Amino acid sequence: MAATNEVFCSEVVGNRNFAALDNVYTAGARVLPPGAPLVSGREAIKTFWTGLVQSANAKSCTLTSVEVIPAGEAIVEIGRATLSFVDSPDPLEAKYVVYWRQEDGRWKWDVDIWNPNS
Amino acid sequence: MAATNEVFCSEVVGNRNFAALDNVYTAGARVLPPGAPLVSGREAIKTFWTGLVQSANAKSCTLTSVEVIPAGEAIVEIGRATLSFVDSPDPLEAKYVVYWRQEDGRWKWDVDIWNPNS
Repeated sequence: MAATNEVFCSEVVGNRNFAALDNVYTAGARVLPPGAPLVSGREAIKTFWTGLVQSANAKSCTLTSVEVIPAGEAIVEIGRATLSFVDSPDPLEAKYVVYWRQEDGRWKWDVDIWNPNS
Repeated sequence: MAATNEVFCSEVVGNRNFAALDNVYTAGARVLPPGAPLVSGREAIKTFWTGLVQSANAKSCTLTSVEVIPAGEAIVEIGRATLSFVDSPDPLEAKYVVYWRQEDGRWKWDVDIWNPNS
């Protein structure tokens, strides 16, 4: 799980390597972003994150697990996210819930929802 | 699950019977509301919803399951929420993820997070 979170922050946000989202989300994953409708499927999720990271000019992020709940063969994670931007000194503080599933032997995000703290 | 969702909309929001939250949330539930920090524990959650329903002057709500995912002895639900207000013709459209667990033979919300669609 830590490896997957690291891919998201370092590769996707940090290096803008959106193909690396293959290693973050399951093929049928659902993303529920604040201020937008549900996004379903990894290809649509790639389009979503490409647009958001580029338009917000995001620079880096950190993801911190607050709670990890075993749920059968899956895991529910509650966490804190910090997203930093090229053009602003003020990071966005958010919290999230991710439903994790294994795909191809790797733990990935199957359902991903977050919202800002303020 | 439908019964629990109905208690929330009819009793808690509709009738402002916040004691009914005992039948909605587990004792140790966590709520992750947009624009505020995580709220942990049913008593703190009662205080949270009492404040929000009263200050927003909420009138009614509907909760609609979009997906119900079995997760061991628990369930992950993705849904749509509509919250209506006494003083406004415009409802709030939101989406949510709830992690359900059984407590005292009843299905309850153990983790609850949502965000607005726009």
